Amino acid sequence: MTDQHTDVFGLRKDVKEVEEGSALSPKFDEKGLIPVVTTDFKTGELLMHAYMNKEALIESIKTGEAVYWSRSRQVLWRKGATSGFVQKIKQMVVDDDQDCVWLRVEVAGGASCHVGYRSCFYREVPTGLSDKELNKPLTLKFLEMDKVFDPEKVYGDAPNPTKL
Amino acid sequence: MTDQHTDVFGLRKDVKEVEEGSALSPKFDEKGLIPVVTTDFKTGELLMHAYMNKEALIESIKTGEAVYWSRSRQVLWRKGATSGFVQKIKQMVVDDDQDCVWLRVEVAGGASCHVGYRSCFYREVPTGLSDKELNKPLTLKFLEMDKVFDPEKVYGDAPNPTKL
Repeated sequence: MTDQHTDVFGLRKDVKEVEEGSALSPKFDEKGLIPVVTTDFKTGELLMHAYMNKEALIESIKTGEAVYWSRSRQVLWRKGATSGFVQKIKQMVVDDDQDCVWLRVEVAGGASCHVGYRSCFYREVPTGLSDKELNKPLTLKFLEMDKVFDPEKVYGDAPNPTKL
Repeated sequence: MTDQHTDVFGLRKDVKEVEEGSALSPKFDEKGLIPVVTTDFKTGELLMHAYMNKEALIESIKTGEAVYWSRSRQVLWRKGATSGFVQKIKQMVVDDDQDCVWLRVEVAGGASCHVGYRSCFYREVPTGLSDKELNKPLTLKFLEMDKVFDPEKVYGDAPNPTKL
């Protein structure tokens, strides 16, 4: 990222301007990150939830492909660089107070989850429960039965990004 | 929240169990929060991005209505308690490493944004830009032209949650 790019974002000086103005003035948190919601452009399905730093946001805007910041690896993360599942940005949208980015993408190969599923969101949580039901461990229901790819074949022995 | 509810979540002892098991074992961050992505059940549109603490997650699971943690007000936030725009949870889904929750909701009244729009995500960010275009402030494009409600009438002089 060159210094000139720092001019690309507006300053956050006024709530009304941030909420109703036309300048992109993203709010990065104390770690320099902004959360990103990525959905499938055609189906609306939620594919993943990740983070960008300033450089990743500018790179995503510039290239039209999703570039995140990997918190587990602490590197710029060009989605698909390893797996081939590049996310082409069809639309990028920012929220009212500009502390979240929404990417609507097309995914080459159709998978976005490192575990091998199409979406990272493949398990349903039961809701509308009684006190009795809430008195024991909840059981998740799988929404996707089959993996799109074999993560061992794609990622080999790369460290698993999931942290306990 | 009563103590008994702490048993409702599984322990995060094993990556494979967290990713591929059927126990809900959410990961709360150092502030005790988990990010939540809320989409419209019918249209798939992203409505808002917010946070829950443990109590809010349990209350959402129990009541089947979205309950968040308000970071700006530092209180449990029963969505719609002031505005009437309650979010009925049609489906709750958790992601691979269980550090994000996806709510698919129906919204009474059809609005989810405190600024008055249907969705919090009402401005598009341009992408696929040249270095020259990236050398000046970006201009957002409004996707929603008309507000669903007048925030002054609904919220009165309550403090605006947007922080600069």
